[in-house]
Amino acid sequence: MTTVELPEANAVPLGFTGGALAAGLKKSGALDLGLIVSDRPCTGAGVFTTNRFPGANIGLCREALARGSMRGIVVHAGQANACTGKEGVRVAERTAKAAAELLGADPSEFVVGSTGVIGVLPDAGKIRNGLDRIVAEGLDADGVLAAGRAMMTTDLVPKMCARTLRLGARKVRLLGMTKGSGMIHPSMATMLAYIVTDAAIPRAALRRMLTRAVDRSFHCLTVDGDTSTSDMVVALANGAAENGKLSEADAAAFERALTEVCRDLARRIARDGEGATRLVTIRVREAVSEADARKVAKTVGSSSLVKTAIFGRDPNWGRIACAVGYSEGRFEPEKVVIRLGKTRIFAAGKPVAHDRPALADYLRNNDEVIVEIRLGAGEAGAEVWTCDFSYDYVRINAEYTT
Amino acid sequence: MTTVELPEANAVPLGFTGGALAAGLKKSGALDLGLIVSDRPCTGAGVFTTNRFPGANIGLCREALARGSMRGIVVHAGQANACTGKEGVRVAERTAKAAAELLGADPSEFVVGSTGVIGVLPDAGKIRNGLDRIVAEGLDADGVLAAGRAMMTTDLVPKMCARTLRLGARKVRLLGMTKGSGMIHPSMATMLAYIVTDAAIPRAALRRMLTRAVDRSFHCLTVDGDTSTSDMVVALANGAAENGKLSEADAAAFERALTEVCRDLARRIARDGEGATRLVTIRVREAVSEADARKVAKTVGSSSLVKTAIFGRDPNWGRIACAVGYSEGRFEPEKVVIRLGKTRIFAAGKPVAHDRPALADYLRNNDEVIVEIRLGAGEAGAEVWTCDFSYDYVRINAEYTT
Repeated sequence: MTTVELPEANAVPLGFTGGALAAGLKKSGALDLGLIVSDRPCTGAGVFTTNRFPGANIGLCREALARGSMRGIVVHAGQANACTGKEGVRVAERTAKAAAELLGADPSEFVVGSTGVIGVLPDAGKIRNGLDRIVAEGLDADGVLAAGRAMMTTDLVPKMCARTLRLGARKVRLLGMTKGSGMIHPSMATMLAYIVTDAAIPRAALRRMLTRAVDRSFHCLTVDGDTSTSDMVVALANGAAENGKLSEADAAAFERALTEVCRDLARRIARDGEGATRLVTIRVREAVSEADARKVAKTVGSSSLVKTAIFGRDPNWGRIACAVGYSEGRFEPEKVVIRLGKTRIFAAGKPVAHDRPALADYLRNNDEVIVEIRLGAGEAGAEVWTCDFSYDYVRINAEYTT
Repeated sequence: MTTVELPEANAVPLGFTGGALAAGLKKSGALDLGLIVSDRPCTGAGVFTTNRFPGANIGLCREALARGSMRGIVVHAGQANACTGKEGVRVAERTAKAAAELLGADPSEFVVGSTGVIGVLPDAGKIRNGLDRIVAEGLDADGVLAAGRAMMTTDLVPKMCARTLRLGARKVRLLGMTKGSGMIHPSMATMLAYIVTDAAIPRAALRRMLTRAVDRSFHCLTVDGDTSTSDMVVALANGAAENGKLSEADAAAFERALTEVCRDLARRIARDGEGATRLVTIRVREAVSEADARKVAKTVGSSSLVKTAIFGRDPNWGRIACAVGYSEGRFEPEKVVIRLGKTRIFAAGKPVAHDRPALADYLRNNDEVIVEIRLGAGEAGAEVWTCDFSYDYVRINAEYTT
């Protein structure tokens, strides 16, 4: 697809350093262990999977974030520490403990993320040795970006995004990183996302902001509720930018930037969806409520028929209308208008005459395809991001074995 | 896949005849128009799509079945008469009128089924000429079976099923036919199913029985509620077997047979799913309620990850457990037991040691794959049928254009 723009080391928020290496967890010998550390305590917030078989590390992360201040993140890829019973919990505990000992902190100050094949116990010894080597080799800003690469599994590209803004008199930085490329159906692959910032943000505020930002970003991928066993989005704020007490305007500005980072990351996941050749944005307008708009957008964005049509460069308005028709949104069928790109293709309950070859060209020549649905029922809107559905999706998932 | 067993002409219920031909609706020149007629009035019942953009024929069918006795079914394939506005309604009306005139009946005595590309108006002239020729060439029992072939679209095989049973002193016959092969996701292709019987079944009883039978059959395909624009299941009972008044035991026996026919047809649809190489049965046991069991089974049966794994002959218990985990069924995670075929692969929240190559062989060597999930929460159960997810699914749907 297109060239991926990634942040450089100077975008890493103050006070954060990291490192990554190949600890031998991935058969391929690729980077598989990452560490991100703040030089001072952070406030932290997290949103976790609602799957009933949560990863062994999920409980520990929740407890850690509930307990108090945080120092960092360990993330390992190759085996997802999920469906691994009590042994899995011990691996997660040993991982946090290893990081804490190396950095003179408490195990409860570390979030442990894990992704890969479910049900295979990650090797705690390899993780511990790897962390030893990462710390021995020295942590730096580049290492934070390397950690963003170490957590990749079927991802084709690393996915990171940086923003700066002014809070009071100070410039503050946000850096987000995420992994996950199978988002075509619920529970595909684990979705991990970490956002670090040098802004000083009180814990309660950070929690509220992260929850709202996730609702408008990661929850707008066509995943039925981010429900893989190991999913997590965690934000850490260390205050190294010394922006002082947060005014109301500052809080709003920070939340906007946090939401932007999360939306950018979510779109990168859709763009790098397993087998994707197109980023597909489903934009619903004129809905009764934002929740309603999201429901319709998610239904259309989850339709295998719509997604295979886009892969086939087929401007098949009928499949889009059909998916709108079985969504549970509130609307009068006669008022629905559907556009592909800028072209009206459906209105008043039937197709609008259009230049079909030109629309096929639109699908052929654009990396991002936009489907717009106006419900004519209200003033709310929402966007959902997905990707097209290709042979490679099947290949990747039919051949992905332990 | 396996050889398809189909009923022969002697299985056609008494008093029903039919015919089919290529009326020029399909570009391929294949059969595309079918007619089934009873020599006497029938009671009728139907279950229709809940899509908000229903086919132009759907309203007419509902009204016809609500009004009174029925004489037959016209079905045409090539263009689905949906999203075709008022012109579409006129085509459906003209189709029913043409059949009625040819057979000396009332237009409201005919059900009109339609399937194919959405939004392209079927040619009413071609349908009318085709019906003329079908009637001129003579209707017979073989023609009923031919009508079952004429309604195929992306189906690879015709799908029909017959049963006989005794009601009182009389043998009665049921013949079911269905089409639809894209059932991997909601709204794939139109699903049409017709069941004719020579039993005498009062209309109200037929309606109740059909609704229950559809709940336990077509609604157990992994379709989110049979919601394509043109879906319908219609049953006609003409009483030619002269079984007389229905006793309670007879009614129960007939409903069992009707349900069996519907389940057999639904399984044939899953087996012939677009691109399918395996019929996949998801069997949930020990659920709190049948509805709960169906919810879990549908979630697992809808998982692209589970379905691609089966296509890859990969006994990936982790993906099954993950889907159970994000389903909304009620259960204690620790009590869930998962089997692939007869082999326990998951219990007590983690994988059970098993012979992985033997399980891959199970997936390689069986046309039907059975996933059994015991929830340990109650005594109810349900089955859902789906198919695996292959390259061909993508090919069929990426290349399917007008």
